[in-house]
Amino acid sequence: MRIALDAMGGDFAPATNIDGAIEALSENRDLSVILVGNASAVKAELDKRDCSRLPISIQHASEVVEMDESPLMALRRKKDSSIRVAINMVKAGDADAMVSAGNSGVVMATALYVLGKLPGVERPAIAAIMPSLKDHFLLLDAGANVDCKPLHLYQFAVMGEAYAKFIFNIEKPRVGLLSIGEEDAKGNELTKEAFKLIKGSNVNFIGNIEGQDIFSGEADVVVCDGFVGNIALKVSEGLAETIVEMLKREFMEHAQGKGDSSVFKDVFKRFVKRTDYSEYGGAPLLGIGNPCIICHGRSTSKAIKNAIKVAGAFHGKGILDVISSEFNKELSRGESVATNE
Amino acid sequence: MRIALDAMGGDFAPATNIDGAIEALSENRDLSVILVGNASAVKAELDKRDCSRLPISIQHASEVVEMDESPLMALRRKKDSSIRVAINMVKAGDADAMVSAGNSGVVMATALYVLGKLPGVERPAIAAIMPSLKDHFLLLDAGANVDCKPLHLYQFAVMGEAYAKFIFNIEKPRVGLLSIGEEDAKGNELTKEAFKLIKGSNVNFIGNIEGQDIFSGEADVVVCDGFVGNIALKVSEGLAETIVEMLKREFMEHAQGKGDSSVFKDVFKRFVKRTDYSEYGGAPLLGIGNPCIICHGRSTSKAIKNAIKVAGAFHGKGILDVISSEFNKELSRGESVATNE
Repeated sequence: MRIALDAMGGDFAPATNIDGAIEALSENRDLSVILVGNASAVKAELDKRDCSRLPISIQHASEVVEMDESPLMALRRKKDSSIRVAINMVKAGDADAMVSAGNSGVVMATALYVLGKLPGVERPAIAAIMPSLKDHFLLLDAGANVDCKPLHLYQFAVMGEAYAKFIFNIEKPRVGLLSIGEEDAKGNELTKEAFKLIKGSNVNFIGNIEGQDIFSGEADVVVCDGFVGNIALKVSEGLAETIVEMLKREFMEHAQGKGDSSVFKDVFKRFVKRTDYSEYGGAPLLGIGNPCIICHGRSTSKAIKNAIKVAGAFHGKGILDVISSEFNKELSRGESVATNE
Repeated sequence: MRIALDAMGGDFAPATNIDGAIEALSENRDLSVILVGNASAVKAELDKRDCSRLPISIQHASEVVEMDESPLMALRRKKDSSIRVAINMVKAGDADAMVSAGNSGVVMATALYVLGKLPGVERPAIAAIMPSLKDHFLLLDAGANVDCKPLHLYQFAVMGEAYAKFIFNIEKPRVGLLSIGEEDAKGNELTKEAFKLIKGSNVNFIGNIEGQDIFSGEADVVVCDGFVGNIALKVSEGLAETIVEMLKREFMEHAQGKGDSSVFKDVFKRFVKRTDYSEYGGAPLLGIGNPCIICHGRSTSKAIKNAIKVAGAFHGKGILDVISSEFNKELSRGESVATNE
């Protein structure tokens, strides 16, 4: 599998991205990586590392998209950006999947423009994996669509269910709608309408799920609009970091010297590893015609490595075909319902 | 100060509510409490406790609002509910403030209907206090208004700033707008319009604040619509509980016997105390004409106790007058801007 990696995207690019690529290639012999970005900058970093025997190459792209650029502007004006060139390579068949830790709005817009959507999909969504008390769950949309219609949430439910079957390897993922009350009629205008659509579909729908319950593992897929999803994701990240920081301070102030501090540090290390976003390696854009994986801007080399592996598996196991087929089933069912009415 | 306490609201009512009232009265001699609810049930619980010397009385209410009842139905059909009777007492001048751990939507709707709004306020908001790494911050709206317009968010900013001055005792609270990017233009349709309104006002506005930054203490007031606010609040609660649970499990599995477990438990206890919502004792309905404090449905006696104290302080220190005056200043400024245009 040939992965086009945006070498310039993310807070620690290109060095960290290159490290991630090397780690992925060292662990997985089926992969090759094309580093897309400023050729001289990428080559300078590459030369510092020993990777002569790895299937790694460079594709020049003269421009870089900044984190605060608008998708529309980037699409119009930066036609030779690392994001655009990487996506063009997938379109041209020179790569099987792309990975970027850059401006996620621009990746989304460019993928949409260049690669297009799977048939029937109105809006692609970012599907982020988050840890739960039991295991983990899929949150979508995690930020691609800030203003959604009920139909979009319904489609996220269909795509999320299909993807969860695959990545979690479960027969019937439980799909919940993120809302502010468990009762069917609770929510805002958007979720109340979406509730009816999902309820009336073949999706294995468990109803509304409240914010406090997403981490208990009640649902395998949590559906929401991209604004709410992004807030939920970021609040969780911020809070997890804050809690670990608070506990460390408490420990430093009140417990140091009283016990074996290595035990305490050990417990924290395991916890951080378990909840570390980088373990999950990026979030796919579900609904786009080819595999595109978005990484956190703060991605470490481990996060990049895992994202490259996810991209490889995404392509290798034909996840898009699975989603397409589920989606077509759901669509034709919807049409037959409409025809019968 | 005379506080009308909904004795029937909350998961552990009436016993826990009565315990909370007794604790509040034992600690604060300026307060008296009227327990509003089924007189025989309340009296039976009251008789189990020694509170003959405390200024506590009972006001009968024959009905109880369930947690899943719609505000409209409760307003129409349960005119003798504990929530309605408690609010009626405030209206009639028989109580100075009310506290309820019952159905918050019904409290909100009833308060709105019976007590009305402060002049100029379009929508009252629930202002919840949350812990941050530095201290704490105010989140509003925490769930009263699930579908908002830009003007509502702007008004939440004005009311939140005024309330934060008082409760946090700071001159210039920093007000942030919860969004999905720091840049001015990031957000959904609602927040982008609200951003402009708040930016153009006298509010000490620090711009957009992302989910991961609310706990770092960058803002004293975080403004959002009630759907997003409720999700953020509940996700935080759920995650904090999950993290503590995960860390405890890690400790049990890997660290037990290796060190002094009391040290570890001690650190957790301090942390839980610091972040425990019950320490903050309920969230006021800002914008309602009289003091109404909403408590968590799972409120412990400590939470009820602290809510009663907040209600007392809210009334005693004339917070509504302060908010009214700030609001009028902001409104007349807005009008003069409109006139000059």
